[in-house]
Amino acid sequence: MSVTLGHNQYGKAETRVVRVYRDSDPHEIVDYNVSVALSGDFEEIHRTGDNSNCLTTDATKNTVNAFAKEYSEAARQPESFGIALAKHFVDDTAPVTRARIKLEMYPWNRLSHDGTPHPHAFARDGGYVRTATVTYDGTNLWVVSGVQDYVVLKTTDSEFWGYLQDKYTTLKPTHDRVMATSVTGQWWHTDSEADWAKSYDSAVATMSSVFAGHHSLALQQTMFAMGEAMIAEQPEIGEVRFSLPNKHHFVIDLSPYGLENPNEVFHADDRPYGFIEGTIHNDLHKDAAPAPNQAFDPGQGW
Amino acid sequence: MSVTLGHNQYGKAETRVVRVYRDSDPHEIVDYNVSVALSGDFEEIHRTGDNSNCLTTDATKNTVNAFAKEYSEAARQPESFGIALAKHFVDDTAPVTRARIKLEMYPWNRLSHDGTPHPHAFARDGGYVRTATVTYDGTNLWVVSGVQDYVVLKTTDSEFWGYLQDKYTTLKPTHDRVMATSVTGQWWHTDSEADWAKSYDSAVATMSSVFAGHHSLALQQTMFAMGEAMIAEQPEIGEVRFSLPNKHHFVIDLSPYGLENPNEVFHADDRPYGFIEGTIHNDLHKDAAPAPNQAFDPGQGW
Amino acid sequence: MSVTLGHNQYGKAETRVVRVYRDSDPHEIVDYNVSVALSGDFEEIHRTGDNSNCLTTDATKNTVNAFAKEYSEAARQPESFGIALAKHFVDDTAPVTRARIKLEMYPWNRLSHDGTPHPHAFARDGGYVRTATVTYDGTNLWVVSGVQDYVVLKTTDSEFWGYLQDKYTTLKPTHDRVMATSVTGQWWHTDSEADWAKSYDSAVATMSSVFAGHHSLALQQTMFAMGEAMIAEQPEIGEVRFSLPNKHHFVIDLSPYGLENPNEVFHADDRPYGFIEGTIHNDLHKDAAPAPNQAFDPGQGW
Amino acid sequence: MSVTLGHNQYGKAETRVVRVYRDSDPHEIVDYNVSVALSGDFEEIHRTGDNSNCLTTDATKNTVNAFAKEYSEAARQPESFGIALAKHFVDDTAPVTRARIKLEMYPWNRLSHDGTPHPHAFARDGGYVRTATVTYDGTNLWVVSGVQDYVVLKTTDSEFWGYLQDKYTTLKPTHDRVMATSVTGQWWHTDSEADWAKSYDSAVATMSSVFAGHHSLALQQTMFAMGEAMIAEQPEIGEVRFSLPNKHHFVIDLSPYGLENPNEVFHADDRPYGFIEGTIHNDLHKDAAPAPNQAFDPGQGW
Repeated sequence: MSVTLGHNQYGKAETRVVRVYRDSDPHEIVDYNVSVALSGDFEEIHRTGDNSNCLTTDATKNTVNAFAKEYSEAARQPESFGIALAKHFVDDTAPVTRARIKLEMYPWNRLSHDGTPHPHAFARDGGYVRTATVTYDGTNLWVVSGVQDYVVLKTTDSEFWGYLQDKYTTLKPTHDRVMATSVTGQWWHTDSEADWAKSYDSAVATMSSVFAGHHSLALQQTMFAMGEAMIAEQPEIGEVRFSLPNKHHFVIDLSPYGLENPNEVFHADDRPYGFIEGTIHNDLHKDAAPAPNQAFDPGQGW
Repeated sequence: MSVTLGHNQYGKAETRVVRVYRDSDPHEIVDYNVSVALSGDFEEIHRTGDNSNCLTTDATKNTVNAFAKEYSEAARQPESFGIALAKHFVDDTAPVTRARIKLEMYPWNRLSHDGTPHPHAFARDGGYVRTATVTYDGTNLWVVSGVQDYVVLKTTDSEFWGYLQDKYTTLKPTHDRVMATSVTGQWWHTDSEADWAKSYDSAVATMSSVFAGHHSLALQQTMFAMGEAMIAEQPEIGEVRFSLPNKHHFVIDLSPYGLENPNEVFHADDRPYGFIEGTIHNDLHKDAAPAPNQAFDPGQGW
Repeated sequence: MSVTLGHNQYGKAETRVVRVYRDSDPHEIVDYNVSVALSGDFEEIHRTGDNSNCLTTDATKNTVNAFAKEYSEAARQPESFGIALAKHFVDDTAPVTRARIKLEMYPWNRLSHDGTPHPHAFARDGGYVRTATVTYDGTNLWVVSGVQDYVVLKTTDSEFWGYLQDKYTTLKPTHDRVMATSVTGQWWHTDSEADWAKSYDSAVATMSSVFAGHHSLALQQTMFAMGEAMIAEQPEIGEVRFSLPNKHHFVIDLSPYGLENPNEVFHADDRPYGFIEGTIHNDLHKDAAPAPNQAFDPGQGW
Repeated sequence: MSVTLGHNQYGKAETRVVRVYRDSDPHEIVDYNVSVALSGDFEEIHRTGDNSNCLTTDATKNTVNAFAKEYSEAARQPESFGIALAKHFVDDTAPVTRARIKLEMYPWNRLSHDGTPHPHAFARDGGYVRTATVTYDGTNLWVVSGVQDYVVLKTTDSEFWGYLQDKYTTLKPTHDRVMATSVTGQWWHTDSEADWAKSYDSAVATMSSVFAGHHSLALQQTMFAMGEAMIAEQPEIGEVRFSLPNKHHFVIDLSPYGLENPNEVFHADDRPYGFIEGTIHNDLHKDAAPAPNQAFDPGQGW
């Protein structure tokens, strides 16, 4: 019986580093959750426990923390912070041939004091998490931006009817329903240099605007329209991937109590939920090589 | 061996009802998680399983859903929605002598479409949860408003020194630290009629402004100042209770890598955390009867 | 406008200390989550930020860790570990007049290797969490044991019918249903010296046996029977409190697909859920003073 | 600007179906969380909202529930339940060309009543979740079994030293440490007919036995040994994948309080954590086609 070591990676996950920029007034703050995954010449670690090629996960954590100071400007945006880290691990550590940096960035809003913005007090903005994933193999660099936990809802302009009927189909068609989802989206940049803050804001604004204005016949259709518009506005985007749970809001039957319910009172259900996932490719970059599959997070790296 | 039934309560917890106000333009939305707890003449249910005095938890859920339509205006604010429900359960159900309604309200912001606010599309505001707890015993009505999951941070203006030294004390004093907490606060209204939306906004704005502007020597001191200011601004508030986890941000030692760290790079730690809880009474209402203890949520109902 | 400081407490919450007993063969392990809450002469901390009476939360954490070594035998059981800590904080720290120690203990089972129990390898038993809460005020000592996250289910022998009918009652009576709950229970010991391991095992075995064997007409009735039996078996128990979510399992209507469903296929629902809470007093200790209310956790400290 | 629809899939996620086998004595119970993902000829749904090829997610949920009755014996094991569902969706629904069924199975233990096993009462076994993922494309059938949330720990027999040193390496080598992880493992069966219960029990017993008995120089080495042993014992297994968070237990420095700590008192840390992932291929099946990558869950489908 013989076995072979296949794909493997390791590193420190979820380093929670907060960087305060306090040499100017007002203070600024960035708040990250950084996960590092390294691949390379690690066969002996697995076979014999010989760690001579092993950069410790503790050192990868230290590097994240140190780079928040050393690469102070890069650390202001998750994409540029990830690029600095990924290049370091591959270029400066002999056994490492590939690095994957996954960053979650938690946004904060400035607090008010006596009616004016305060220079060093903040409240966490829990409305979404900004993400970036940077993958580097010594030659190729893939930068993927994203958003997660972005919960949106529209109270009308959503229909669902005309679907396939099988033995197990009992759903009633509707021409007016609440549509809600918690957006997890990722988009791959074919250009690895950009104004990341501006690009991110534009991408989220575009998907939000389309979600609001789209007259929906299916969540899939709205998802596709969102991706299409993001690509139209930023043509350097090569591909957009979405994972959209359909957060069901069921109309409650109030007739037993003598009440009408014309789409006014809903039960927000937990489980099960429809789950819609899809990829929208920009044809402009369809022949781009190498393919970005490994650049997306595993949960979206179909 | 004989036993006695002591305090008991039951009801449906976490009914997730969403109310859309769609007869006007733009649409409006309220999003609740409602928990009902009833006490009364329920001895026989426990002793013999005789349910003739038992209003089913299913019926309490139905009532919450129906009241979102029947008491349409009351349902716009958690305090008035809770009052309508609490009075109904006690006044209209013979065996029920006390009702406790706990409401979580999830805020939503209006989305933009092509640069203008959209009439029926929203994004969840994850920055805090508004709460209300209404308790009614047929005679007395206690209304308690609150906020939870409201995460605030200040990058300076916080010190901690001069504390007691015992055998197990190793902490170094500091004259400049990051201070952060996730606010759970509740405040008891001595007046059960108010402009609840205005009162809530004012309470949160005041605690936020104090948190931002206060030069802190201890989280307890900041907490006390927050409660004091809320009472000063709304003298009908009889009491404020806070539960404040001290979300530690530890300065990271970067000297092994030859870097200085003048309070710029922090580790945001998970556990353990300091946990500060306190009550601030308004002396104006110090002789108010009955005491509001049972009106606060159990977690703050010391 | 003047305000008064009311009840307040503070300390380090959720210190995750693991103690390995390795001087014998096989190794043994205890795994705790310890939260400390101190009350006392702390008015000046709140009023002026004068911390001279403030034992730091960091020191309370250090004490928990140190006591796992210093009070090695006491640390084997959560009740005795809590007693040692509570007495120390009150008796050895002048400003502290009351301490409340809350302990969660995560159970571990020994792993097998080649078919025999291994002397130093373990798997976490996720079936329940054992708890203890110890409160001490310099004179009185309350010890409360408990269990949480203990999920039990019976597939029959549960009925629910004969309940009150109001305008909002639509539930159909049933003579055979699935009954399931996640037990949170706490019981107050009138005797603060006991064989804690034996007492705990007996209490959980008794509640489990009653849950299994009881023909239930209401979850309240089963709850009461569980508490009654626990007291009958351990008469030193003064009081038992339960919080029991009714984890609904709804029979699914399979008739649209031409299938019968004689209580075989169920939907395990998340929310809303019935929530049943109650107290069973042992009449033997009904005149015990001081009353143990503050000894129970706030969530059960009605 | 033109765009192309890439990989997409949809279905109902997290259908919580519980099946009671009650026609025999004692009762038996299986408890599932089932997620369905369908791919196929769905371009028009995305492009125009034409749903005529859309099997509703509601119908996929109904199918899961109905199959728990119709395929009563298959439903006893997650692998066979998943196979029945996957084949149905592809073979019986024209537009569907690929189905992926992910099942979580929550184990339950029989309760005792008066010292004997009770025929219809159970306690949830929270020690692990059994999983299965079945993927079918009309021709190929991939069956992957797994386990998650299986937390194991060894108090000794684990070393870590001899690793690479870079500028950011400060970790001290150790010859005796606590090693703990929460196992997520998946293994691909090259044979789609097996005694699934027996195979699962054997796989978990083998990985547990190796974890217990292995003298570890790196978590990677222990992981590799676990996979190697599983393949040696069940040669039909084609590949094993692990995701292993290194749940750090740090030795606490008790010297400030005059105490020694010879690996007895540990801090169980939350974040960050080392994260070790790897694949072990069985060379016997190295030329198996088609490659099973898509058969693993996305989180392990590198």
